[in-house]
Amino acid sequence: MLILALDTATEKGSVALASETRLLGELTLEAQGAYLTRLLPGVRALLQDTGSTLAQLGAIAVSTGPGNFTGLRIGLATAKSLAWSLGCPLVPVPTMEVLAAQCPSPLTPIGVILDAKRNEVFWGLFRCPQELPQVLEGPRRLAVAQLSSRLTAPLLLTGPGLTVHGDFLRDRLPPGVSLAPPEKRYPRAATVARLARRRLKEGQTAAPEQLAPTYLRPAL
Amino acid sequence: MLILALDTATEKGSVALASETRLLGELTLEAQGAYLTRLLPGVRALLQDTGSTLAQLGAIAVSTGPGNFTGLRIGLATAKSLAWSLGCPLVPVPTMEVLAAQCPSPLTPIGVILDAKRNEVFWGLFRCPQELPQVLEGPRRLAVAQLSSRLTAPLLLTGPGLTVHGDFLRDRLPPGVSLAPPEKRYPRAATVARLARRRLKEGQTAAPEQLAPTYLRPAL
Repeated sequence: MLILALDTATEKGSVALASETRLLGELTLEAQGAYLTRLLPGVRALLQDTGSTLAQLGAIAVSTGPGNFTGLRIGLATAKSLAWSLGCPLVPVPTMEVLAAQCPSPLTPIGVILDAKRNEVFWGLFRCPQELPQVLEGPRRLAVAQLSSRLTAPLLLTGPGLTVHGDFLRDRLPPGVSLAPPEKRYPRAATVARLARRRLKEGQTAAPEQLAPTYLRPAL
Repeated sequence: MLILALDTATEKGSVALASETRLLGELTLEAQGAYLTRLLPGVRALLQDTGSTLAQLGAIAVSTGPGNFTGLRIGLATAKSLAWSLGCPLVPVPTMEVLAAQCPSPLTPIGVILDAKRNEVFWGLFRCPQELPQVLEGPRRLAVAQLSSRLTAPLLLTGPGLTVHGDFLRDRLPPGVSLAPPEKRYPRAATVARLARRRLKEGQTAAPEQLAPTYLRPAL
């Protein structure tokens, strides 16, 4: 039983394939705004590279945001259609949990920041002592200025928002608040697959027809 | 062999199911901006209502725009994923040809108008003496003011743009230029299915992984 995972929540998308015990492969989609033409070829290449077939897929996992409006919709429409037509479970995985799970730490809480445009961010606070993240706060939308009050040590910050709001943050980081290394700041489909494995066992699946992305801002 | 057709190019979307000779059913999606949650339930309901199954689908047809940015992406991502996972051909059908095919006329050319926002329209000129439309001009993007020079009799105008730009048009219609009745101004998946039938016979299919919508404006 294989899990196919899709992440199109940010501009650095990826697809991954995992068995019940390990990652079989992952492929980065360099797809600035081009998920509609890159996502399915990525999935096909991944299946070919790992010698797998569509028929072996036992679950489709998808990163549900918050994040890029159009990217999420294409990712979700694709995941839902695949799950429905293949008749396999669909496992939604919140993008912020993916980011937190990429920075496990026994003692330090993890603050996840995604840019929300218009001088706002998506913010979530997690603990991730081992493999699985636990939500402490959020996700919620905040004005960038409101971030200051949340930067209390000890804290590890991660997420693509660190790059966008780097200048703001650099001037305000108290001792004991650190930044995740750049390569961990974007969600990876490999992590989506890993978190989906547990969710699948716990029956945390969604009806393919109904799943919608996590909006924290109404669509325009 | 059944054809499933999706149209999400405008705010009045629909899904249709057709055999090689006739329409089996059509379902309107009252889905202002909600195609991500309405499209697959619509397809499922249509299959149930007609006593059909996914396994009977022999082709997926999709309306490719121009039109609503997000709606088109969800429609195409869905159509592509279904075609790919079911292993059946994907048949792209230009939305303007769908609109022209809904207004057949032995002698009168058909001008199709869709709103393109920012005081612009998508414009296409067709002949449709019988069942199948032939392109005379376009589709192209024009300033609304440029429409005036194209309103030469005889001409039948159609498309959702007639409603949006009704005031502009009403003052400029010369004798011999008429407007299609409101119920024909939106594309219908039933028409997509009918045009797809011919395209399928002629081998005008697309690789599910590669198809992109018709943009006439670069994405923001």
